[in-house]
Amino acid sequence: ASDPDMASAGETLAQHAKELGVQLESAEFAARMDALDPLRHLRREFHVPKIRDIQNTDATVADPEQDCVYFCGNSLGLQPVGTRGLIESELDKWARRGVQGHHDDSPRPWVTIEETVSTTMAAIVGGLPEEVVVMNTLTVNLHLLMVPFYRPTATRFKILIEARAFPSDYMAVVSQIKFHGFDPATALIEVGPRPGEHAINDDDIVSTIREQGDTIALVLLGALQYYTGQLFDMPRITKEGHAKGCVVGFDCAHAAGNVVLALHDWDVDFACWCSYKYLNSGPGALSGAFMHKKHAENKDLPRFSGWWGVDLAKRFAMENVYDIVPGVRGLQLSNPPMLETVAILGSLNVFQKTSMSQLRAKSLLLTGYLELLLNQLRAARTAGLNFHILTPANPQLRGCQLSVFFDGSVEIVHHELERRGLVCDLRKPNVLRFAPVPLYNSFSDVQRFVASLKSALEYTDAQIAADGLTIA
Amino acid sequence: ASDPDMASAGETLAQHAKELGVQLESAEFAARMDALDPLRHLRREFHVPKIRDIQNTDATVADPEQDCVYFCGNSLGLQPVGTRGLIESELDKWARRGVQGHHDDSPRPWVTIEETVSTTMAAIVGGLPEEVVVMNTLTVNLHLLMVPFYRPTATRFKILIEARAFPSDYMAVVSQIKFHGFDPATALIEVGPRPGEHAINDDDIVSTIREQGDTIALVLLGALQYYTGQLFDMPRITKEGHAKGCVVGFDCAHAAGNVVLALHDWDVDFACWCSYKYLNSGPGALSGAFMHKKHAENKDLPRFSGWWGVDLAKRFAMENVYDIVPGVRGLQLSNPPMLETVAILGSLNVFQKTSMSQLRAKSLLLTGYLELLLNQLRAARTAGLNFHILTPANPQLRGCQLSVFFDGSVEIVHHELERRGLVCDLRKPNVLRFAPVPLYNSFSDVQRFVASLKSALEYTDAQIAADGLTIA
Ligand SMILES: Cc1ncc(COP(=O)(O)O)c(C=O)c1O
Ligand SMILES: Cc1ncc(COP(=O)(O)O)c(C=O)c1O
Repeated sequence: ASDPDMASAGETLAQHAKELGVQLESAEFAARMDALDPLRHLRREFHVPKIRDIQNTDATVADPEQDCVYFCGNSLGLQPVGTRGLIESELDKWARRGVQGHHDDSPRPWVTIEETVSTTMAAIVGGLPEEVVVMNTLTVNLHLLMVPFYRPTATRFKILIEARAFPSDYMAVVSQIKFHGFDPATALIEVGPRPGEHAINDDDIVSTIREQGDTIALVLLGALQYYTGQLFDMPRITKEGHAKGCVVGFDCAHAAGNVVLALHDWDVDFACWCSYKYLNSGPGALSGAFMHKKHAENKDLPRFSGWWGVDLAKRFAMENVYDIVPGVRGLQLSNPPMLETVAILGSLNVFQKTSMSQLRAKSLLLTGYLELLLNQLRAARTAGLNFHILTPANPQLRGCQLSVFFDGSVEIVHHELERRGLVCDLRKPNVLRFAPVPLYNSFSDVQRFVASLKSALEYTDAQIAADGLTIA
Repeated sequence: ASDPDMASAGETLAQHAKELGVQLESAEFAARMDALDPLRHLRREFHVPKIRDIQNTDATVADPEQDCVYFCGNSLGLQPVGTRGLIESELDKWARRGVQGHHDDSPRPWVTIEETVSTTMAAIVGGLPEEVVVMNTLTVNLHLLMVPFYRPTATRFKILIEARAFPSDYMAVVSQIKFHGFDPATALIEVGPRPGEHAINDDDIVSTIREQGDTIALVLLGALQYYTGQLFDMPRITKEGHAKGCVVGFDCAHAAGNVVLALHDWDVDFACWCSYKYLNSGPGALSGAFMHKKHAENKDLPRFSGWWGVDLAKRFAMENVYDIVPGVRGLQLSNPPMLETVAILGSLNVFQKTSMSQLRAKSLLLTGYLELLLNQLRAARTAGLNFHILTPANPQLRGCQLSVFFDGSVEIVHHELERRGLVCDLRKPNVLRFAPVPLYNSFSDVQRFVASLKSALEYTDAQIAADGLTIA
């Protein structure tokens, strides 16, 4: 399934450079690309940190008054400018009205505050409005979804995950396996990359499903792998899992707001994701949960329940009748946290100014540009410390993030990047993750980033030589 | 167990009135009591809504510029004045530093932000610091605690709750019973009040435990009953439950921050509570969870796990080794929501200026005063609409809230109270709940409230007469 739009990022960029008569790696080229970017105005919707506020920066190599290059949206997205005002207006309401804010005539009475966000959130992940709810945090939702969707039996009890799954997902599935009286040693299947490779081949997941599917209760993958940046072939894996009678769920923490998802159309059984990464809703922000409509009326699915799963019309009758709405909204337990809910709204208001397909189109170019410049730099470095990109080269198999493996001294490189006002994160051993986010990053960010990386590497080489260190 | 401090609220008040030479029900008496109140300065720590901002008020009967009388802290506590600044400083940090706020040198790096609140919270409920954690919302924690603590077997599978339990607790236990394959019709025991009574006699809970305890897996009570305002004899019930081998847990939503709790000393197995009521942390605020230390090292207790249950020193090693810390902190799943966590801090900062025993001492007087005035009013009303207090008269069996049952027309009364700038809540059928909160309510609030209730009742009577309505 090759998509011409996806294959052509490099060509498009080269074409532009040629037409403009400038070098791909020049600041001028990047500035021209920014001028052409139809989403460039969205950067103004965010607080981009200044270099002076970033730790370990050095005014001799980076102007403190300049914006940092923030490539850490894969970890914590930037704050939308509108978020604070929304929070303040809710704080005002609480201060002025107390409990009456639950049922007042304001734009967002708290009693239904989650509705203002759940529907917009659904569009971002390709769910129907009734298939998505915003509630709790990610790992909490993962468990609440495993209550109905991990129902092991004596013969079908395994969970398939990817090797190096995010630790919280790992802890969650191990604890679920133990909870049900099974042994992770036999019940947990971890599919890893082939020897010498970093990304996991979708074929290997599929063949594991084909071979062991009769004993697999649940296939649960990080849709976009946090470490490698690899995007799994979600529709294919879902189909193969279903063919063997497995439930298929995805943790979309790194996929939501990053790539185009079609959870409903792909027939995914359930999914959950956080909103502090590409969804820019702040540290520990609320999570989204998706349950496919086809499961909504299935009364055999057990669930943990609370009063927020009761229909609004009956919720406050305070009659103890167990009557929970169908589908994912029936998994709601508690009245929603007001502050976190408006933080989500602050972010979704920005998403509503564009679409996931527009964002993805820019993202393909932006990450394609980063990849091009990194590969140029790598090729030019004939001596000293070097690196290679772990993330698949095929844009269909990744989102905006590139994970870069350094031959050594990654801490020094990371420190040198910080000195120059570049923010990215370090994953031991030896990996830096660079995530240019189409909502707020620019082509100039990418250009500046790679130019600074070049100088950071040179400085690191010099330091290693001076200290008599070896690279590894 | 009669406590002289508790029995004497009425006497103390009468004594004061006598010494001061003023009538108990006079505004002057209330003002003098306020002047004597050692906690009176704490009211300034809160935003008390003005009458102009309260709905359905009427400027002809209530001065819009005056504070309302807010007796709804049992539903949503008022906003501490310091909360907004704390939230803003975290928003600033996020805006200025992005992801670096997780590990920076600020007073509250996000990575350990929950620690700043969990320890203070422990003191409020009488838990050891390692027995309490602040996380998630109430019904979520109730389920996460039932994972280890409701372990039904073929012979011991029942859950004992109080009749008219809060609906969310009811939905939670019914869903847990079903999840484990049992039938609520046989597995759920609801102990109700005796005929003609409102409160549930602790003796009846105890005798049910003695009779059916061998089949009861879990005793789960709303420590302070939301509807009647009754406080159960938690140490006695815990002891009786344990004598029969039952697990004993409490939902302390209405007890935490209201009455003195000693969860550790009482040997309670687990508890959870919200912090939007007496803990003043805002709509949908985070919940506290308590697990007694004696269970901490019990490896047989299953649990749902996530990365936040891994020791901080190992959490970010990103190695998939299932190694969860003992006790309640091991039940943490997700990285904590920053906004909600500082909202808790804003509230706990106020609690740190006093103590639960000081608050309780004031509360006994304040609620005792309300009870006195209500009973005076009731006795004086020889015709027309009347009411009686549902909540036990014994102060040891209640917190600050009095639940008042009206003979009829409670909606009109409620509306009339609102017209006069009094905020309290209506629980159908026919109950208004009045909760004078010692942190921010005054004796003058109580005095004004009852004087206004008197006029509200007279007006309601007149309206009923004019409309030719009958009372019921
Ligand atoms: C006793 C009790 N239990 C449970 C709840 C539900 O809490 P939440 O919606 O925070 O889960 C409440 C809320 O008022 C309550 O009073
Ligand atoms: C893939 C993935 N799963 C789970 C988590 C844990 O999320 P939370 O702490 O919000 O539960 C993260 C956090 O970064 C993640 O990236």
